[in-house]
Amino acid sequence: MLMLLHRGQLPAHRHHTHTHTHPACKGEMKILDEAPGSETDRASDQERGDRYETSHYQSPLLSDPWKPCRQTRAVVKEWSMQLRCCLGAVCGMQWYSYAALGIIMAFLSFLMDLSVAKLLRAHQWLYLKLEGNSLLQFVCWTLYPACLCAVASSFSHNICPFSTGSGIPEVRTMLAGIEMPHYLSLTNMFTKFVGLICTLSAGSTVFLGKVGPFVHLSTMVGAYLSKLCARVQDRNKDKEAGEMLVVAAAVGVASCFRAPVSGVLFSVEVMCSHFALSHYVPCFFSAACGTLTFGLFTVWSGDRETLQALFKTNFPTALPFYPLEIVLFGFLGLLCGAVSRCYLFCHQWMLQFTKTNSVLVKMLTTEKALYSGMVAFLLASVTFPHFAGQHMASQYTMKQLLTSLLDSRPWSSHFHNASEQLEPEPLSEWSTSGNSVFLSLAVFLLMKMWMLVLACTLPVPAGYFMPVFVYGAALGRLHGEGVAYLFSTAVTSDWHWASINPGGYALAGAAALSGAVTHTLSPALLAMELTGQFSHAVPVLLATLLANALARSQQRPSFYDALSISKRLPHLPSLKKACPLLPSTAVGQHLGVKLVQLQKAAGPAEIQHAVNTSSETQFPVVDSHVSQIFLGFVLRSELLILLRHSKTEPLEKHLDEVCCIHPASVLVSPHSTVQEVHSLLSVVGAQTLYVTDRGRLVGTLTWSEMKRILEDLAKEI
Amino acid sequence: MLMLLHRGQLPAHRHHTHTHTHPACKGEMKILDEAPGSETDRASDQERGDRYETSHYQSPLLSDPWKPCRQTRAVVKEWSMQLRCCLGAVCGMQWYSYAALGIIMAFLSFLMDLSVAKLLRAHQWLYLKLEGNSLLQFVCWTLYPACLCAVASSFSHNICPFSTGSGIPEVRTMLAGIEMPHYLSLTNMFTKFVGLICTLSAGSTVFLGKVGPFVHLSTMVGAYLSKLCARVQDRNKDKEAGEMLVVAAAVGVASCFRAPVSGVLFSVEVMCSHFALSHYVPCFFSAACGTLTFGLFTVWSGDRETLQALFKTNFPTALPFYPLEIVLFGFLGLLCGAVSRCYLFCHQWMLQFTKTNSVLVKMLTTEKALYSGMVAFLLASVTFPHFAGQHMASQYTMKQLLTSLLDSRPWSSHFHNASEQLEPEPLSEWSTSGNSVFLSLAVFLLMKMWMLVLACTLPVPAGYFMPVFVYGAALGRLHGEGVAYLFSTAVTSDWHWASINPGGYALAGAAALSGAVTHTLSPALLAMELTGQFSHAVPVLLATLLANALARSQQRPSFYDALSISKRLPHLPSLKKACPLLPSTAVGQHLGVKLVQLQKAAGPAEIQHAVNTSSETQFPVVDSHVSQIFLGFVLRSELLILLRHSKTEPLEKHLDEVCCIHPASVLVSPHSTVQEVHSLLSVVGAQTLYVTDRGRLVGTLTWSEMKRILEDLAKEI
Repeated sequence: MLMLLHRGQLPAHRHHTHTHTHPACKGEMKILDEAPGSETDRASDQERGDRYETSHYQSPLLSDPWKPCRQTRAVVKEWSMQLRCCLGAVCGMQWYSYAALGIIMAFLSFLMDLSVAKLLRAHQWLYLKLEGNSLLQFVCWTLYPACLCAVASSFSHNICPFSTGSGIPEVRTMLAGIEMPHYLSLTNMFTKFVGLICTLSAGSTVFLGKVGPFVHLSTMVGAYLSKLCARVQDRNKDKEAGEMLVVAAAVGVASCFRAPVSGVLFSVEVMCSHFALSHYVPCFFSAACGTLTFGLFTVWSGDRETLQALFKTNFPTALPFYPLEIVLFGFLGLLCGAVSRCYLFCHQWMLQFTKTNSVLVKMLTTEKALYSGMVAFLLASVTFPHFAGQHMASQYTMKQLLTSLLDSRPWSSHFHNASEQLEPEPLSEWSTSGNSVFLSLAVFLLMKMWMLVLACTLPVPAGYFMPVFVYGAALGRLHGEGVAYLFSTAVTSDWHWASINPGGYALAGAAALSGAVTHTLSPALLAMELTGQFSHAVPVLLATLLANALARSQQRPSFYDALSISKRLPHLPSLKKACPLLPSTAVGQHLGVKLVQLQKAAGPAEIQHAVNTSSETQFPVVDSHVSQIFLGFVLRSELLILLRHSKTEPLEKHLDEVCCIHPASVLVSPHSTVQEVHSLLSVVGAQTLYVTDRGRLVGTLTWSEMKRILEDLAKEI
Repeated sequence: MLMLLHRGQLPAHRHHTHTHTHPACKGEMKILDEAPGSETDRASDQERGDRYETSHYQSPLLSDPWKPCRQTRAVVKEWSMQLRCCLGAVCGMQWYSYAALGIIMAFLSFLMDLSVAKLLRAHQWLYLKLEGNSLLQFVCWTLYPACLCAVASSFSHNICPFSTGSGIPEVRTMLAGIEMPHYLSLTNMFTKFVGLICTLSAGSTVFLGKVGPFVHLSTMVGAYLSKLCARVQDRNKDKEAGEMLVVAAAVGVASCFRAPVSGVLFSVEVMCSHFALSHYVPCFFSAACGTLTFGLFTVWSGDRETLQALFKTNFPTALPFYPLEIVLFGFLGLLCGAVSRCYLFCHQWMLQFTKTNSVLVKMLTTEKALYSGMVAFLLASVTFPHFAGQHMASQYTMKQLLTSLLDSRPWSSHFHNASEQLEPEPLSEWSTSGNSVFLSLAVFLLMKMWMLVLACTLPVPAGYFMPVFVYGAALGRLHGEGVAYLFSTAVTSDWHWASINPGGYALAGAAALSGAVTHTLSPALLAMELTGQFSHAVPVLLATLLANALARSQQRPSFYDALSISKRLPHLPSLKKACPLLPSTAVGQHLGVKLVQLQKAAGPAEIQHAVNTSSETQFPVVDSHVSQIFLGFVLRSELLILLRHSKTEPLEKHLDEVCCIHPASVLVSPHSTVQEVHSLLSVVGAQTLYVTDRGRLVGTLTWSEMKRILEDLAKEI
């Protein structure tokens, strides 16, 4: 259906990005069918415009006599028109695209989970088959992830280099209004999808996640759908594309974790400075569609009996925690905040190191696949179950790790002897070879810290949220086990403390650490939605808030901020964190080349010159070239019509007599700061802002100008 | 502690609302101690300024020789200064005020619940004591709520007439930036609190709720705290007051329902067009403080053993619902949407009727207490348990109603005979005198519809959210019981359908109906947080989305929109719904009287004249009175200093030589629409926008101007 619509669409007139459309073009049917994405120069544009004028009332199907299958095309077109009318009668076309986005992302998520599970099971099967021969097991354990990482790396490097990494820094930049078409291409989508499957199949040895690239994938699908939608409707493309990106960010999280509300909260948090309420309902709608579809897929695949949480826990609901444990949860939050600062420091040092160390720079530019393979081999060697891996539960996949950490029964041996002997042993991997679980957890935390920092340098499509979430869960688990052990030994008289649930601490630790690293609060709700239990809502929220407070103090950049700064992305909030005074510089210092402008009394020759020299969609009009007093702007489309008329009947009138000069509703002064102009552009919805000084036109500001200014600022850091 | 700070504060210089403060005043200690809220005219202001200049380096404690207890004051002042330093070292003072807001609101909420519970129990005790005498029971049943409503009405009418109603329409208006000081006074807070206790104590016969007035109470406390905070710090008061209102909206919901996340979502939804991300963390922080404190209060009062959800449910978690039930939940959502439209239609008709019917108008203006008493008497007569009340569970309080409706066991007699005979009878009130539960629920739904519409006209402080929530739960319960009954009788061979949970439908219905009536989505999450279970998240969200889609179609106004329109509040989104073209009118048509302006070459005489004739904090400067070319603005405070200097040494220089002319960063054209200017004012954060036409100054736009324009527009409807 979507492809039908794609072929049978009605192209919007491409110069009507401003809302003031010419009356003659308004509400009429556009009849030109151009190949999607074809390049048109100005001459053909004008020619087309002429044809448009003349062929106004002809049948739309006879205007392209050279195209084949005219009859079939006519039928398909008619059907698609009827379909559009039917669909449009229920609600706007954009709602269908939101639903489609949710459904597609849920399908992709399900497909990815399925493929990754199969590949992981294959690795596990092979490893177990080689039982008895340690050398072969080592080769199998290390080469499998190494090869997968090398494949992912070379695949993404060769097909689309923009597909490496998390993608969230780029998504944030695009949400702030900056256009980055390379990051929204279909090639990128394909590369990122395949590359991510490879990375995730490398398993818990490489310890990378899914959510970041999934948000990026979602924006790519969203951008494609919004293009489609804009072609079906005759609407303002830019506005919808922006809306679709916001919705896509929510859907990415929702369809990855089956967590609609935290998806929407993530989408709010990832915005630059303001969240427009008009995006609120679409976000919820699309996220709900994604979650519902993902849930139904898992039901149909026989995985579960009904729609349930991804990591369903069985915490006791009658007495989830004692009121005084709130203090311990608060302490855990502070601990997570401190660990997050340590992690962020290491990560930023590593980012700097990969940019300055000449060997690494050379390897990362020329031999990406080799580097990825080597790093993956190193990580896998360390986690080989017959060596250090036995102390860090390395046989578990990421999902199994999280499930085991969120288990509500205490692991400490004290309890196993006492009361819970009847229940099955919950920890097969965390206490192999008779180790204490405390030792296992401590080794896991110490080793995974540097391993994760190293894994973040891999040039493959990979998410960095889930590893931090699992790491936080391990930290919380250690804290929880410690608390449970201490209270069971020290306060034995007070019997009821024995029922402390370390799984709750693991949950709080996961939310707090991932929230602190990314400087967000949505992980608190995500933890609830992932486990499907609300009993620990208040302590988890408290821990996340405290961890965030510690992580955000002294204006430290978050994980994604550091990536943005390192990649020199034109993202204003990140730049602000790197150099707080930068966004306060006056915009007048950064104004670019003088624009093409028309004077009120311009004749056809000046208009023709302006149209030929500039490709802008609107031209400012000044009183005269001497006084430069700004009057308003005229649209390029109107000028083109005017020029066409002037060819047939030469007119001697001036511009202001024949063409409507639209007033610019908002003007900025050259003294306004970059930040003010940025928020004006993103909030007011104007595509072009005119800079005037005492009434005289000084320059114009568009999103592309803003991108240039921000890139200049990023270079200064 | 707060009162200490209040006395020992450092007053901010009252004309420095703009961020450009004069260098001489910046960072220095203000030494004047004025009585809070005292009126100062311009002359004393100037005199004070003079004294300020001369007494600059004197001890702050010797400057007010007429004040008593100088020694004590000095000690207290020093202590409070030290306390301020200590607190300020950890984090900004505003964070303490957010925490205080949460704690105060939780305390008020707890206090209110306690008082209401006691008053309700007293009524119940009296009613049961009179068992056997129907007439006395009738008198007790009807007069108690009638008296309480009459007291609430006369109390609020006599002390603060602005305290009646929900308060949410006014809060929305204030959040949009319009100042309404009457609605934020401490008198109003007191009146609303006491009045609300009376209304809630009238019980489920009057069927009104708590959340709306609580949000309003929260904004009042927030406004007071932000004033306090601005006095302790030397900060921009206006910006913080706005932030505090947003936070307060979240805290209101959070401390009322112990639901922090849906409080924040409510705060997002209640905003005008954009939610600023800088409010996001404060909202969460304050809401978490409120929830935590409220939870601890209930624990300490012995009500519960730990922090738990308010209406904790025991839905089965293993298989909460079958995947195909999703369709039934969707149908319930559409049903709720339809019912919401019916309810909104009745409510809007009633609003119109109370404004046009002469008898009602007269009663509602002069005899409010009588009217309230009569309506409450009528409602109570209808619900008298010996008459119609027996068919509508009228003996239950609001809380008991909701708890009984959310029960997970089916009520239909079919099941009682079959499998669940061992468990206690869950429905004592819904099937009294052998009625079918279907009849009881249907009677409840039919009667409560008109009773609720009638109750909404009561001139008492009351919330309208909770009744709709309970009504929706009853609607969902009826649907769920029907589904359970049908499937148990028709599909008896398919045994597992017998375990359908009607409580889940009740929950979905509650969220869907309350979401549809208020045009919000946060009730979906609120339903989760209220019950403490996440198992029904997807169906509840789906039902709420569908109900919203139906309720919002054709740009119908929501419940609060209708109240705003009826009260002619200057709230732009409501006006837009009443008349979609209104906000698109050009702002130039509504510009008020010409402002006082200075020309570049102004001398001391002209400056003195300008300062005397206008009380604005900033004055626009034009090139000359003839050309009117706008240059920028000067601050009143700088002009005052200039005038003071000119007295001692007469200067002949012009304004632009001695005073800094600040450039206005954003200018608007008279052609820009009211909506554009509104969003500029709220987003850019400028207090004054200058309107220029081709460089010439045409007018200024401030929030008070905007209020006037919106009130004019509201009159046109």
